[in-house]
Amino acid sequence: MTSELTRRDRRPGPSVRTRVVEYAGEARLEHEDRLATEEPLEIRLAWPGAPARRVAVTMRTPGHDFELAVGWLVHERVIEPARIAAVRYCTDTDLSPLEQFNVVTVEVTSPPLRVPGARDVSSACGVCGKESIADAVGGPLPRVSDFQVPLDVVRGLPDRLREEQAGFARTGGLHAAGLFEVDGTRVVVREDVGRHNAVDKAVGAVLLEPRAVPGVLVLSGRVGFELVQKAVVSGIGLVVAVGAPSSLAVALAQESGVGVVGFTRPDRCVVYAGDQRLGV
Amino acid sequence: MTSELTRRDRRPGPSVRTRVVEYAGEARLEHEDRLATEEPLEIRLAWPGAPARRVAVTMRTPGHDFELAVGWLVHERVIEPARIAAVRYCTDTDLSPLEQFNVVTVEVTSPPLRVPGARDVSSACGVCGKESIADAVGGPLPRVSDFQVPLDVVRGLPDRLREEQAGFARTGGLHAAGLFEVDGTRVVVREDVGRHNAVDKAVGAVLLEPRAVPGVLVLSGRVGFELVQKAVVSGIGLVVAVGAPSSLAVALAQESGVGVVGFTRPDRCVVYAGDQRLGV
Repeated sequence: MTSELTRRDRRPGPSVRTRVVEYAGEARLEHEDRLATEEPLEIRLAWPGAPARRVAVTMRTPGHDFELAVGWLVHERVIEPARIAAVRYCTDTDLSPLEQFNVVTVEVTSPPLRVPGARDVSSACGVCGKESIADAVGGPLPRVSDFQVPLDVVRGLPDRLREEQAGFARTGGLHAAGLFEVDGTRVVVREDVGRHNAVDKAVGAVLLEPRAVPGVLVLSGRVGFELVQKAVVSGIGLVVAVGAPSSLAVALAQESGVGVVGFTRPDRCVVYAGDQRLGV
Repeated sequence: MTSELTRRDRRPGPSVRTRVVEYAGEARLEHEDRLATEEPLEIRLAWPGAPARRVAVTMRTPGHDFELAVGWLVHERVIEPARIAAVRYCTDTDLSPLEQFNVVTVEVTSPPLRVPGARDVSSACGVCGKESIADAVGGPLPRVSDFQVPLDVVRGLPDRLREEQAGFARTGGLHAAGLFEVDGTRVVVREDVGRHNAVDKAVGAVLLEPRAVPGVLVLSGRVGFELVQKAVVSGIGLVVAVGAPSSLAVALAQESGVGVVGFTRPDRCVVYAGDQRLGV
């Protein structure tokens, strides 16, 4: 599958093109699709007499980056809007062209109300400046076996997940993550207001049992980079979602051999990575 | 409005009951509804010869907390599953009963692969142990005027937001946040893979102009605690969402006088806080 996803040498836009395989009813259609771009943004803060320092890294869709940096700093009570002197992209000569558009410096005229501690650079924030996206995950990865899941099983998984979504049925406000065996057997489903938490809980459940992590992760919503990253670390080979994946989620999946299926319904699904994992 | 939301003296469950006002067509219905519970979880790590230390705080739905802690630590490459010696709720005598169920300690048999830096305790993580939820926001809050928005305007806002969601239309993978005047005038709409980022961008846009922050925030998805917190800090008086709010989002809104409307459609909406802000 060729795509724009790995062209990390240009200024990112709000969406990128990628080639997908769509299974609609009995048809198999190859076509182009668009993904929401997901890239890390590093926010730096500078004031008179102090060098610029990193105060946050967030995964975001590129565009309106100055607004994002200012809004975040004000909402976190780090600065007052009236103190803003300048907002600019970083021009350090040791940054690659792409990194320059992923680092914003906000200059204020007096020391900030508080200086956020150097945030733990979680794996999600380690993407900047890495040669390979998969490098950002770090460490040796579990081997994922070359299993296939029948197309009909894949398209039925969101319904199997929903059968266990008691909390969503009651509140309409919970995400779900489920682990399934390659033959479609449901192993565990967990719900949470945070989609990352639901994945941590589901994998934590099998680790505490302990038993091997099943091959398929099913998600009730969208697929961001950090969710694919969790799959990669756990050796999960296929991510099946009700919603859309982001650009960086697909890029990481393609690099690491994880399959990503989005917009999954009984009669339709769109394969963004790892089409070979679907047995048709 | 009475609710279970402020009863912070018991072990939290996955959902809580609250009283709501639903406007369905021409009818005004008061009834009970259920909210997904949102509470902070502090994860501590301990190993031989080292005192337990906090390595993360995350907003989550209570339940399966041991699984969440273990899953998070393994996914972040902090520990290996085989090294887990014990997982338990904190029993420090200086914790309130509720805090005890919001702090999990994972003991491992050898030093971890890495120790996550003390994460910046963002405002979202400052909830534990505070007498009042609003205290957690910190600092003096902007005064919010006692405006009213006509019911028909409120129910039409998600459609007005969608008119500007170009990225969602293309990718299906973006959240949107929009700022509207009290009379329904659209001021700015921003999209992002992260719903928090979309709010930061929209508010950042008016701050950079600069102009006053409009009174109404419209969200394409669900309403978590941190989104209401951003509204409170910015002096936004009404949050109108397409999806459901969480328990802590509603509790903070009720304490701080912010209105929260969920499941908003042209013929229906559910008011979780600040019913007086809707002019009927």
